[in-house]
Parts: sequence; C-alpha cells; structure tokens
Amino acid sequence: MPELRKDPVLKRWVIIATERSSRPNDFKKKREDFPANQDLSKCPFCPGNEFMTPPEVLAYRKPGTLANGPGWWIRVVNNKFPALNPEGSLDKKGIGIYDMMNGVGYHEVLIETDDHFATPLSMSSSQFEEIIWGYRDRIIELSKDVRIKYVIIFKNHGKGAGASLFHPHSQIIATPIIPAVIKNEIDNAKEYFELRDRCLFCDIVTQELGHQDRIVFENNSFIAFCPFASAFPFETWIIPKRHFHRFEDIDKNHVVDLAQTIKSVFSKLYLLLDNPPFNMMLHTAPPNSNSKEYYHWHIEIIPRLTEVAGFEWGTGTYINPMLPEKAAIELRKQEIT
Amino acid sequence: MPELRKDPVLKRWVIIATERSSRPNDFKKKREDFPANQDLSKCPFCPGNEFMTPPEVLAYRKPGTLANGPGWWIRVVNNKFPALNPEGSLDKKGIGIYDMMNGVGYHEVLIETDDHFATPLSMSSSQFEEIIWGYRDRIIELSKDVRIKYVIIFKNHGKGAGASLFHPHSQIIATPIIPAVIKNEIDNAKEYFELRDRCLFCDIVTQELGHQDRIVFENNSFIAFCPFASAFPFETWIIPKRHFHRFEDIDKNHVVDLAQTIKSVFSKLYLLLDNPPFNMMLHTAPPNSNSKEYYHWHIEIIPRLTEVAGFEWGTGTYINPMLPEKAAIELRKQEIT
Repeated sequence: MPELRKDPVLKRWVIIATERSSRPNDFKKKREDFPANQDLSKCPFCPGNEFMTPPEVLAYRKPGTLANGPGWWIRVVNNKFPALNPEGSLDKKGIGIYDMMNGVGYHEVLIETDDHFATPLSMSSSQFEEIIWGYRDRIIELSKDVRIKYVIIFKNHGKGAGASLFHPHSQIIATPIIPAVIKNEIDNAKEYFELRDRCLFCDIVTQELGHQDRIVFENNSFIAFCPFASAFPFETWIIPKRHFHRFEDIDKNHVVDLAQTIKSVFSKLYLLLDNPPFNMMLHTAPPNSNSKEYYHWHIEIIPRLTEVAGFEWGTGTYINPMLPEKAAIELRKQEIT
Repeated sequence: MPELRKDPVLKRWVIIATERSSRPNDFKKKREDFPANQDLSKCPFCPGNEFMTPPEVLAYRKPGTLANGPGWWIRVVNNKFPALNPEGSLDKKGIGIYDMMNGVGYHEVLIETDDHFATPLSMSSSQFEEIIWGYRDRIIELSKDVRIKYVIIFKNHGKGAGASLFHPHSQIIATPIIPAVIKNEIDNAKEYFELRDRCLFCDIVTQELGHQDRIVFENNSFIAFCPFASAFPFETWIIPKRHFHRFEDIDKNHVVDLAQTIKSVFSKLYLLLDNPPFNMMLHTAPPNSNSKEYYHWHIEIIPRLTEVAGFEWGTGTYINPMLPEKAAIELRKQEIT
C-alpha cells in the first residue's frame, strides 16, 4: 500500500509508492554524463586557466602566489553568465496588479578544488573544510550589500542535475528578495514555535536520533538522515544537533564535523548509486532575520534519479518510489575509510 | 539588466534573465525523444491492444462495440503502475511530530485518440472536445468518493517531460489531500479577495486583455497568455474570461471554445519549438471548496526546455531566459489553419 507522508518543514504531502521500484540498482539507470576523456586545457576551473574566468573575488592560495594565477586550493569567481547583476538600483515598481524590480544581485562560482577529477572519496576532509570556509566567507561578504536579502549556496553535480562543467564547483547566488521556499520554511517553523515553544527542526533531530531508523551518519555535531517525507529516492539532509539558525555563525570545531559529515554523505551516495547526479542546497536564515529562536539551518541533498513531471509541477506533491527507512539502511551500509 | 517579477498566484519571484538566451532557435536543442519507427503492435494504447491495459473505466465508443475492444475514440483505464490505490481506508495517524495516512486514491490514464501518431495539427478541434468531456466525466465520478479531496488532470508530452509512452494520453490522479500548490493558490487568491473584493484571476484577465502584450490566443470564452512572471520559456496559461472556480461546471459552448484554444496553443508550441516536451496541468477548485468567489480555474502549460537545478529546488525561484512578452510575439506569429 502506498503511503502519504507530510513534510512538516514545507507542509507538503509526499506519496511513497514503493511498488514502483525499490532496489538501489533500479536507480542506477543509464545516465547522460560527461565524457571520460576530459580536455583539461579547456577547463576554465583548472589551474593555469584562470584567465578563462572573470577575476577572482576570493581565493585561498599559497603565500606569494598571484591573484588569478595558480597556487590556490579554493577559488571564487563571478559566474560568466550571471542570472543577476550587481550594478544598478532595484527600482521596485508595480505594473497594474504585478510587482517587479531590477535583477540586482550576485552570481558566483566556488571552485572546490584544483583537481579536475576529484571525487568525494579522493578529496580530504580538510579540503571539505576549506569549501565550508569559502561558503561562509562569501555569505558574510555578500550580506554586507544592503540590497541583498538572501544568499543561497548550492551545488549541481553531474549533467543530470544541471551542471554544465565537470570540474567540482558550487554556486552562490545573492538575491534582493527572500526566496519562496525559504520564506515558507521560516513561516512554518514560526507557526510551530508559536504553538509549542520549541524549534521544529530540534524536534526532528530528537525524534530521528531516538529511533535511528532514518539516520545515515552521525558525529558529535551533526546528523545526516533521510527525511520522513523524502520527496526523492535517497534524499538526505544534514543538520546540526544543536540549535543554530544561521550557517555563517558556525565555529571551527563544527566546520571540522560538518566537513566529515558532507564527505561521508557524498561518498555514500557515490558508492551506492555509482556517482549519481545530485543537487545540494544550503538552507539558512536570512542575514537580517528575527528567526533566531525557531529557524535551524540545514543542508538538503537530492539525487536526481526520478522524473519530475506534470503531477509534481501541478500539485507540489512528489511521488517517491523509495522508502526513506530503506534508503537509510542502504546508505548506512556503505563504509567510508 | 535581468528583471525580478513576482507571480501573484504563487507569490514567488522569478528571474527573467534574457542575456542567457532568447531566440526560439536557442531552445530547439537536441532532445531525447521517442524513436520514429514506433512498433504499434506493442502500444497498449492502440486499438486492438486493449487487453494490454487494465479494464477501461470510461470509453466513448461506437454504438454496438464492446468494452475493452476497438471502436472507441476516448478511453480511460487505470494506470498499470498506480501511485495511489483505491482499496482500503485512510488510517490517518501521527508518528511523533510527523503525519501520515495510507496512499488511498486513483491513478488513471486518458487515451486521447486512437491515432498513435496524432499531433495537435492533425487532431480535430472536436476530438479535443471529447478529451475535455472525458476530463470532466472523470473529475465528477472520482469526486463522489468521500475519501477524495482533489482530482488533478495533467499531461506529460515527450520523454523530456516524463512521458513513458508515445501514444497521446493524459493522466488523472485523485488524492485524499489538497496538494500544496493548489492550497497555496487558493490561500493567495483568498487573501487577494479579502483585500480587494475582486478575483485575482479576473484582474489578471482584465490586465492582460487591456494591453495584449502577452496574449497568445483569444476567442469568445478564453484567453491564452504567457504569464507576467513565467517561470519557464514559452510558459502559457489558458483561462476562462468569465469567473468560474471549478472546471467541471463548464458548459457545452465553453467546451467548444476551450477545445479550440487548447488545439491552438498546442499547435503553436509544436510549430514554433519543433514538438517540444511539455507538461500541462489543470488547476481547478477542490470538489468541496468555499472558494467559489475567489478561485478561478485555469490550465498551465510548461515546455520543458530549461534545466531545473539546485537553485530552483533550494529556493523556489526560477531563472527564465525568455521574456514572456517576446515568447507571446513568437507564439502569436504561428498561424494555425
């Protein structure tokens, strides 16, 4: 019998229909992917090709090396085809019943490593720490612009998840509005807090740790788990055990633990599903937000193994052929050394 | 300069970033599609192969022909791999902070024609009328089940839009919950009505008809237009000019006009974008709903030409490289005889 489960964070129902397919092998279908014979001389993210990108806005690099040359291990540049433009004013206006403003904002790329062929297995936990510091530095920097209301960090891995380049990278978009999904999460968390005087996400952590059925990984500071109402097969969230509303407030010990958690989850997905395409999104409170008591930052990772079609677009209800408890068992089994 | 536009129906912002690509030809990219040499003997939706599907729940067929045999021009069957199951009770329950129920519901397929190779150009307007009557009959029938709260009608056309079969068909899913997107639209329309004592959608119709910039097609009863905050290139909505909250209340004259409108829009997309993959979703008020004054049914059509990736999943904000006003010009140009 299929199940309907309600996501308490987004207040949406998900259909868990396991009759449709349920073994990890069912999801290792033939995928459109990048060719194996990569031509590094054409990769704008490889060392030596720094001239192919717009100038860097941040780099972690060896002392004595020059900006926009080799010697870096993390490099952030403006996106060559930005969705938003930092120049100009917002010019907010109404057109009849409609509202609009200029597309002011930032669109950056964080190059995660100098190794074109890096995988979650080959990358060190300390390199993941550097990526996390890069995310944090950019959120803090971009939030200084008074026009910016939100900074979203995300990663598209693999062609099937929308990546146009193979070399490991994340993206950073700073917007002059609070995006609908974030607003929705904050509103729902606020409503929950007003009702119970507890953080919704803290309650999720407590319940997940209590029965362990959906836990994928755990260390001192974080759990990774498949959410009760997973919309996608092997969807995995990473969340701090203790209550923090803003990612950028993370301290050094937590960066170490988060790096270990991300490396572990990415590696488990890589091993179990044969390097699947996936999207990763950081959900954090807006820089100027009263949500300190009730919002709780977290990372959402969705492997792109199922079609999103008319039903999902039309309703916001997702059909997931994989039971999250079963997904968690399979992911737990993958041993990372 | 990119623009941010707010969708008043879903209350979400869309980024219109036309620098990224803007000519129709940019979207005619190489698409994964069904092979041209279709083997009709294996198509479960072709006449003569009725035994390959579950038994029909509705058919419009020639007098004297037998159920589950040839002679039909519209045929509705249960989906062979249903997402929901009509047997059993809901058994609603809480598990700690989570909510769930059994996946009770219906999942049907409406076969739109006996012609495997039918296109919007080859199909008559009267055949579209028959499809519309089929949608209506099934909504009314499925709404009689007291466990059902909503019936969604949708169409996935082409592999790139999630279709698994070539033969023209729509799907019908009846759910025991009101889906999040529909609830969101209803809530937003209610808020608008409480503020202004007018229907949000009627105001949209009035404004679109006033300046005509985004109108794609118009007849006595309907307009087709590219929405102000289109999330996708060539996104097109069809909406009755007069206020009706429920699709199933449609009268015969309106069915004729709707058929003409759908045929026209599908044909224009087919010609302009070379038979693009697309999703179509019918948005209508739930069968038991107090939204008569403020909800307004409509059809949304989204060609699947752009990637939906981490940014869109993480934020609910979409990046659309095509100005809706320009999309409407291009679609208007396509002459249907």
